[in-house]
Amino acid sequence: MIAAKGYAAPTPSAPLAPFSFERREVGPHDVQIEILYCGVCHSDLHQARNEWGAGIFPMVPGHEIVGRIVKVGDHVKKFKVGDLAGIGCFVDSCRTCPSCQEGLEQYCEVGSASTYNGTEMDRKTPTYGGYSNTIVTDENYTLKVAPNLPLDRVAPLLCAGITTWSPLRHWKVGKGHQVAIVGLGGLGHMAVKLAASLGAEVTVLSTSASKEKDAMDLGAHHFVVSKDAEAMKAQRGRFDFILDCVSAQHDLNLYLSLLKRDGTMVMVGAPPAPEAVHAFSLIPGRKTLAGSMIGGIKETQEMLDYCAEHNIASDVEVIAIKDINTAYDRMLKSDVKYRFVIDMATL
Amino acid sequence: MIAAKGYAAPTPSAPLAPFSFERREVGPHDVQIEILYCGVCHSDLHQARNEWGAGIFPMVPGHEIVGRIVKVGDHVKKFKVGDLAGIGCFVDSCRTCPSCQEGLEQYCEVGSASTYNGTEMDRKTPTYGGYSNTIVTDENYTLKVAPNLPLDRVAPLLCAGITTWSPLRHWKVGKGHQVAIVGLGGLGHMAVKLAASLGAEVTVLSTSASKEKDAMDLGAHHFVVSKDAEAMKAQRGRFDFILDCVSAQHDLNLYLSLLKRDGTMVMVGAPPAPEAVHAFSLIPGRKTLAGSMIGGIKETQEMLDYCAEHNIASDVEVIAIKDINTAYDRMLKSDVKYRFVIDMATL
Repeated sequence: MIAAKGYAAPTPSAPLAPFSFERREVGPHDVQIEILYCGVCHSDLHQARNEWGAGIFPMVPGHEIVGRIVKVGDHVKKFKVGDLAGIGCFVDSCRTCPSCQEGLEQYCEVGSASTYNGTEMDRKTPTYGGYSNTIVTDENYTLKVAPNLPLDRVAPLLCAGITTWSPLRHWKVGKGHQVAIVGLGGLGHMAVKLAASLGAEVTVLSTSASKEKDAMDLGAHHFVVSKDAEAMKAQRGRFDFILDCVSAQHDLNLYLSLLKRDGTMVMVGAPPAPEAVHAFSLIPGRKTLAGSMIGGIKETQEMLDYCAEHNIASDVEVIAIKDINTAYDRMLKSDVKYRFVIDMATL
Repeated sequence: MIAAKGYAAPTPSAPLAPFSFERREVGPHDVQIEILYCGVCHSDLHQARNEWGAGIFPMVPGHEIVGRIVKVGDHVKKFKVGDLAGIGCFVDSCRTCPSCQEGLEQYCEVGSASTYNGTEMDRKTPTYGGYSNTIVTDENYTLKVAPNLPLDRVAPLLCAGITTWSPLRHWKVGKGHQVAIVGLGGLGHMAVKLAASLGAEVTVLSTSASKEKDAMDLGAHHFVVSKDAEAMKAQRGRFDFILDCVSAQHDLNLYLSLLKRDGTMVMVGAPPAPEAVHAFSLIPGRKTLAGSMIGGIKETQEMLDYCAEHNIASDVEVIAIKDINTAYDRMLKSDVKYRFVIDMATL
């Protein structure tokens, strides 16, 4: 086994603290990565505090991982020592179900192996995430990272980037489309960059008037304060596509009213409780409310390559790992622009 | 003006009673129809009792109209005296908005003219529906009805038929698809016939175990009692498409759990209050919840022609118009198989 160290939540109620554990030996199809940066996703906080239940403790969070390959297994073809690499939200899947066969491993029908707070596909060995110095993964679940972007700013692409990219691509968002992004946080700020880059006319809908300048700087064309009832009314029937990045409670009917006929709103944030949806929000304009979850390996690679080519990366605040608990508290207050990223050299 | 008679709700709280009124003279693009049968839609009851608000009284309900042309305007091309004809849920629309231009007049962006409980496009002249002996309509909003099906059984196609046909076609339901129909009433029984005819494998999900034989007779391949938690659990992840025909309160999350990844559930019934939808019902399988409303003129004609060709019609109970109030009471108890139709000869 390979000795590893990181930060873990020992229990749901305790702050994260240094933790030593072991990674598996590098198998024939495995790579070992020295982790350089790991993004801090809002779901890390939910899971470390066991707010979604069924948490496995001690828990080493982190699924926005970038680093450098330090060892490769005998049969590894995609990577060599010294290459940059990334790991997203899962490290394995069944590989045989229709979803896996179609490259949609995130929807693996027997359940993929989460990067942390899960188990390997043996359904016994716990997985530990990226708030750590090293990780061993199958090369097929490891992404190639181009060297031209700052690595700290690449890390959040592995979750925030792909989570917004996948629905934009699946629903074929592009030139000529009126697109609204709801919520300008970790997901939303990537959604603005990606949707604008794909050619859409982008409107940010945010509860915070103070985010207008940022929204425009990120590439949005319009900004509407979603608490302003009159301003929202003026947007009715305007959008082909709305990407809803909010994971707090909010009125879906209000946003559905902004869709054109045959428009689609996709939820990528998960509010804690069910939201009330009125049939009359959907029926009169043949509207669609859908959900989307991260992306498959193939699509994640496509997104990373696209971002490298178009010089797109996350806006981040780099922190030392000892400050992770403070970062969680600030994240709870949306006090981050727009993603904390742990510099693993501080471990 | 043309003298007309029918049955109207004089006020929201009074039973329907005989009512005399006037239809407009036949204009150059109009046809006058002698109404032979009119279906009784559940929405007639809601509107006659003003349960959706903003009702215009006295109200002559009825938007499932079939009859015979008795007069045509000078410029009418599509019809001649003696032809059979049908009228559905609207009698006009703006004709210029994108939806009208695309033949989706039901989604007219300025609002189509409802066949009853609405106004003509002048937004002043009230419209009166099919519980009456005659109606005058623009030929462009009048459907051709083939002579080979029993006319009483054709009437409900103008609303129940097209309401279920349109989403089946829009979402391209056909051979190889697993389709569930939720609720076996006026809409549901047409949905079963149409989906089966289009080649789908059809499962009826109904709260009433007693409807199993009917479901199979209508063309369903499977029947599941939706109150049976174990039986429902066994259907999880099975369906490509669910058509939700229920207008009473029900748990959408339960039905969404039955969809495959990338599956779609379409609501055509409108529960009275918003329903709770959990983000996790949509996100993990990239699932879609959508709505659909009747259909456009072109699609309605396509449906009528398809039904004529495939010998598909509604299962009806023909009533005399004097029994309409009793029929409403029975409809409230779902005591009808599957649509009341008024024989207008009884007026």
